Amino acid sequence: MFSERINRLSGSLIREILAAAQRPEVISFAGGLPAAEKLPDFDWSAMPKSLAQYGMSEGEPALRAKLAEHVSALGLPCSADQVLVVTGSQQTLDLAAKLFVDPGTPVLVEGPTFLAALQVFRLFGADCLGVPLTANGIDVAALEAQLKARKPAFAYLIPTFQNPSGARYDDATRDAVAALLDEYNVPSLEDDPYRDLSFDGVAAAPICSRLKKAPWIYTGTLSKTLAPGLRDAFLVASPELFPYFVKLKQAADLHSCRYAQWQAEQWLGTPKLAEHVAGLIGFYRERRDAMQCSLERHFADLADWSTPEGGLFFWLRLKRDVDTRQLLPLALAEDVAFMPGEPFFPDPDDGIGHLRLNFSHAPAGRIEEGIKRLAAILRAAGA
Amino acid sequence: MFSERINRLSGSLIREILAAAQRPEVISFAGGLPAAEKLPDFDWSAMPKSLAQYGMSEGEPALRAKLAEHVSALGLPCSADQVLVVTGSQQTLDLAAKLFVDPGTPVLVEGPTFLAALQVFRLFGADCLGVPLTANGIDVAALEAQLKARKPAFAYLIPTFQNPSGARYDDATRDAVAALLDEYNVPSLEDDPYRDLSFDGVAAAPICSRLKKAPWIYTGTLSKTLAPGLRDAFLVASPELFPYFVKLKQAADLHSCRYAQWQAEQWLGTPKLAEHVAGLIGFYRERRDAMQCSLERHFADLADWSTPEGGLFFWLRLKRDVDTRQLLPLALAEDVAFMPGEPFFPDPDDGIGHLRLNFSHAPAGRIEEGIKRLAAILRAAGA
Repeated sequence: MFSERINRLSGSLIREILAAAQRPEVISFAGGLPAAEKLPDFDWSAMPKSLAQYGMSEGEPALRAKLAEHVSALGLPCSADQVLVVTGSQQTLDLAAKLFVDPGTPVLVEGPTFLAALQVFRLFGADCLGVPLTANGIDVAALEAQLKARKPAFAYLIPTFQNPSGARYDDATRDAVAALLDEYNVPSLEDDPYRDLSFDGVAAAPICSRLKKAPWIYTGTLSKTLAPGLRDAFLVASPELFPYFVKLKQAADLHSCRYAQWQAEQWLGTPKLAEHVAGLIGFYRERRDAMQCSLERHFADLADWSTPEGGLFFWLRLKRDVDTRQLLPLALAEDVAFMPGEPFFPDPDDGIGHLRLNFSHAPAGRIEEGIKRLAAILRAAGA
Repeated sequence: MFSERINRLSGSLIREILAAAQRPEVISFAGGLPAAEKLPDFDWSAMPKSLAQYGMSEGEPALRAKLAEHVSALGLPCSADQVLVVTGSQQTLDLAAKLFVDPGTPVLVEGPTFLAALQVFRLFGADCLGVPLTANGIDVAALEAQLKARKPAFAYLIPTFQNPSGARYDDATRDAVAALLDEYNVPSLEDDPYRDLSFDGVAAAPICSRLKKAPWIYTGTLSKTLAPGLRDAFLVASPELFPYFVKLKQAADLHSCRYAQWQAEQWLGTPKLAEHVAGLIGFYRERRDAMQCSLERHFADLADWSTPEGGLFFWLRLKRDVDTRQLLPLALAEDVAFMPGEPFFPDPDDGIGHLRLNFSHAPAGRIEEGIKRLAAILRAAGA
């Protein structure tokens, strides 16, 4: 009755956990939600009436121009006619899967990688090939070996405060990855939602900007810096790929909400947004520090981790190989939610004993209580 | 380099014509655009700040409840947990294609049918099987023959002021179609964007409401009654199908813009919206009447047509078989835009000599001038 791909349709584990964690008594480290206290106030009073009409599939011209400036300022020069406004960067993943993936198509991903990317690439039939991460980014030798062994249709990379690991590719790794993608002529899909949430201010230029000939797609979002409820995100693509994305966007939903696009345009490139993001960073840094203290107190003998320099997550490697998926129901019973790390790996068996903890959502007092409870649950389970 | 489906990726002819028709001097009968004069004024002042956060994939609970009431009042009883908010009803077509269509999957459509539906079903590889329309709706005998010959994965139907033909299925045809879909257990996808734009107030209950056992999806939109720029649309599905749509929506874009959903909720089911739609109907009826007069004046010897009782379009059958696709550049050169009818047919050769004329967008004086010019172009081309 259904298409063949429906055999591979999985729900979002994150969304299921978020649903289970909706009770106010639950201390949730599961999602990647902005802190409710830091949501911006929007002024809609000057919105032009003409936005009620149909808009362009590519997005609002004024917003596309501002996005081109924004992306060019990151070191990836582009023009407004390379910018496509999308509904959440999840839509970029859907459109890219449509463009590249047939059943059995190899797709290169980091191991671990963003769960919802695995979900949509696999829905279209991708064979996701994982390449391990190091502290400085993807393992370049393993990347080369993988490119040599089996050429992927594209490489999906999250080089800046990677989700879930928090890893940040250094400059040398970015250059090496770009050189390899050029050499093997493999398109890159660079997902960069956390770039602006940097605690040390360091921001290396995108990998896409370092390519000399391979096709590329760069995708970003306002969900982490402004408001996810708007669903304002964008992709920028090299000229040979861009026209395909416009047609795929037309077929997917014609165009994104014009009101949300207008609101984004009011903020992008303004001192108001810079100030808002600076406030967010200070706020999130305090929460990161609170979680770091709590982890040192309760997890020093249980796990290893690096302190994240940006983004929204701690990534823990337990000292003992305990499958954290089996701990989740126990944690929820104690009103603590976290994300098991195993499903972030193309092969979950490669990830036994990992967990992801979001530090942006819960206030410091709740962080300490939640980490303490989680440590007790882990100990009781033999970790 | 690309997926196999990209061989079947086509741009939207409508969007290309709309782009060509953007010059203000062009009299456009091409799109399905609401009249700019009738776009509503939105009040955003009471919007809750909490909408900035991530929302549910299913949509805002308050809007889903109102949509369930709205659809139930049409004669299709449903509960809020069968309602999925989508980004334009185009997204329903994308999700349905994902659910049902593999390369070669037969899909039953009306001939002619909605162009963008052919586009997305074919992108996924559908073999679109057209069943002819009569004045009272689909040809029931031809439908049965088609169901017998080759069972489709689903039947895509637009029973109320069909796009492009304007046909409205009468009660007997709706009952007969429902009985056949039940008999052959073929899921129906009923697309109902024009229902509320009825000039005679007649509104037969949806075909989905007449089914006894076949699975169904009903999709509607606020684009034609409120504002397309919001991208507020919805689907309602029978309980065995609904969970698939939620997971497919998650993978597509996580959720639709919460602000646009909130705005829709302010209008749906209120006297304010009823009054707005009543105003629209009066306004569009005048334009329909203006086009009817102009057609009688200039097209009586050129074409046959029925006066549409709702929706946004006249559908003309030329008396001579002239391929109207070849007339389009001539018309654009004379600053008139229309939609050739041939591409609306699964096999365009079945549709030689048809054209679709939108009557909602241009004011009466421009309608007369445009129809006059179009008639001259047709005559010069031997029609």
